[in-house]
Amino acid sequence: MGLDNPNQHCKFEVPEIIFGRGLLNQVGSCARRLGGKKVFLVSDEGLFKAGWVDRVMKSLQGAGLTVVLYDQVTSNPKDHEIDAGFREYVAQGADVIVGLGGGSAMDAAKGIAILGSNGGQIQDYRGVDQIHRPLPPLVLCPTTCGTGSDVSQFAVINDTSERCKVTIMSRCVAPDISLTDPDTLETLPDEYLGSSAVDALSHAIEAYFSIAASTLTDVNAAQSLTLLAKSFENAVKERRPEDLEDLSRASLHAGMAFSHALLGISHALAQPIGGLYDANHGHVNAALLPEVLRYDFPVVERKLSAFATALGHNTLGNEKYVQEMALETIDHLLDAGNAPRSLRHLGVREEDLPDLARRALDDVCLLTSPRQTDQEDLLGILKRSY
Amino acid sequence: MGLDNPNQHCKFEVPEIIFGRGLLNQVGSCARRLGGKKVFLVSDEGLFKAGWVDRVMKSLQGAGLTVVLYDQVTSNPKDHEIDAGFREYVAQGADVIVGLGGGSAMDAAKGIAILGSNGGQIQDYRGVDQIHRPLPPLVLCPTTCGTGSDVSQFAVINDTSERCKVTIMSRCVAPDISLTDPDTLETLPDEYLGSSAVDALSHAIEAYFSIAASTLTDVNAAQSLTLLAKSFENAVKERRPEDLEDLSRASLHAGMAFSHALLGISHALAQPIGGLYDANHGHVNAALLPEVLRYDFPVVERKLSAFATALGHNTLGNEKYVQEMALETIDHLLDAGNAPRSLRHLGVREEDLPDLARRALDDVCLLTSPRQTDQEDLLGILKRSY
Repeated sequence: MGLDNPNQHCKFEVPEIIFGRGLLNQVGSCARRLGGKKVFLVSDEGLFKAGWVDRVMKSLQGAGLTVVLYDQVTSNPKDHEIDAGFREYVAQGADVIVGLGGGSAMDAAKGIAILGSNGGQIQDYRGVDQIHRPLPPLVLCPTTCGTGSDVSQFAVINDTSERCKVTIMSRCVAPDISLTDPDTLETLPDEYLGSSAVDALSHAIEAYFSIAASTLTDVNAAQSLTLLAKSFENAVKERRPEDLEDLSRASLHAGMAFSHALLGISHALAQPIGGLYDANHGHVNAALLPEVLRYDFPVVERKLSAFATALGHNTLGNEKYVQEMALETIDHLLDAGNAPRSLRHLGVREEDLPDLARRALDDVCLLTSPRQTDQEDLLGILKRSY
Repeated sequence: MGLDNPNQHCKFEVPEIIFGRGLLNQVGSCARRLGGKKVFLVSDEGLFKAGWVDRVMKSLQGAGLTVVLYDQVTSNPKDHEIDAGFREYVAQGADVIVGLGGGSAMDAAKGIAILGSNGGQIQDYRGVDQIHRPLPPLVLCPTTCGTGSDVSQFAVINDTSERCKVTIMSRCVAPDISLTDPDTLETLPDEYLGSSAVDALSHAIEAYFSIAASTLTDVNAAQSLTLLAKSFENAVKERRPEDLEDLSRASLHAGMAFSHALLGISHALAQPIGGLYDANHGHVNAALLPEVLRYDFPVVERKLSAFATALGHNTLGNEKYVQEMALETIDHLLDAGNAPRSLRHLGVREEDLPDLARRALDDVCLLTSPRQTDQEDLLGILKRSY
């Protein structure tokens, strides 16, 4: 239940979810089932080299579909990449979109889908519920374990002229089908495995303490925490398929949680940092999370014991130490992800901190933060995370 | 994760869920959003007398929609009621269906919707995936706390000539929108409050131990158990709104779990009993559950500790006693629901037991039972529950 309004109203809407090892082969039947004939496949070069693009193309072609590949997507996908993709989508006469990749490829696929049925510039759809025509059929296949874009109502695109992130939130933006094949994690480089799992951790934590949380989101956030506490370290060290599958599940559960409960201060601060420096989103959250938690703990006491329990602690008789227990485990998980632990190491300039605090004040994520904050407090968190 | 195939594939698909006290007033905007102009409202006399039908009609009319009321639905809805409803739906030229009530009204609404776009007899759609045309827009509003029909892929109709229950399972059968207003429980008679919460308990338990369970269903089953353990007794005794809301949530979570994990022996046995005697479905499960659990426990050991924890027990250091702990709590909850605790008291005739065991053998619920069973063992469970 939410912290401040336990009897609140809540909505919960997730796409059809298909999850399992080896299931990437089913993407063809999914796209066909949605009525598509010509698929616009949005991915990136890394996945092409790892062979997953080829696997997906074979599945799509095997289902009798024509495929156009668009793999000119970079991390923190840029407005001009969306625009170029949209032109190509129209020129090719495609009628269904498949996104294969991490948050960048999936958000690019969402961006192209938004323009595909609505036209204009991606910046036109900034904010909440600004999309008025339903998107073309959309299947998203995550190949990292953090973004949650495959189940969420969000897309985040970089506005390169303003050097900021554009957040688009709309029920239209969730895909028709989310298809996760955890086997794709086997070729994910260590750095991205760690940073995307850290991103899932940040989603689960912020969704859990959000004032818009409900039992519908809490069960998913808590499950994500439990899976991460159980398998994150081993997955990075040994890369056993069952541990990797746990990370995929953790990401899925965290996505279902934050898509409805939304997020908090860490993500509000991560948005302007991502916009200004093109920094790794998971790493930015890793640098911020401990200080954000120390800031939030005084107002979330009611949920702390369950939070520590979800992270694997036995809190019975240890109620006084739940904050320390939880922080220690989170520190441990952030270390497991090999995340740089300070903003300084992510290229953030100290003189930019006041401007970052000011920009974060406008971010939608602050609306669901458990603790009301202001520019001064945000600057304090940034400084302590520097 | 499932008991026998922890790395299995899983699917998860739920309707749009809207949940909160007072939200029945939003049914009009929901029906309009789905594109309807003339609403076929399926409900029953009890809800009419309690004033909820009037509330829903006002909301629908306030949204500019015309409403046709069909309230000739009885418990364990009958094939001829579906047929009569379907004829009325066609005669009136309605284009959206709203089901308001317990499982009976909602399953009747589903049945009318199936015939509405597919024609024929309801028996034609028995079994898995026998529906080939999408249903008319459908909004379901549960007013009891057990059925889960508002989120599930099932409809159960009584075949009055064969005196058996017809189970229809198809992704088409889930509604577009599930809208729960827990305030509706305030007028639910004690008997139905208890028996429907017992039904939710049986859904949560059987889904939790199903071999098709995954983390996606387990989190919901466990949350349902936790809410029932916390609030069931008080809700029945004191009827405080916050406890009633917990029961509504428990039913919703259990529905999300069993719609995907399916059920087990208790429901396999409950189906022929319901078909033969028109007995209260929750009460039938209450009579069967303890013996089914004793039968299943030896093969579900891996999940027993988490099961007892979900029911509110501290299992640390008490691993040897988790079965006893869990059974005691379940006994307590069944008592709280004032459920008759034996088949004898539900009108079941002792001489029918062998036939009931034989009929249960064909039930789809046995496919996901954690323990493989046979007619002899089923008869044993029936005798011990008599």
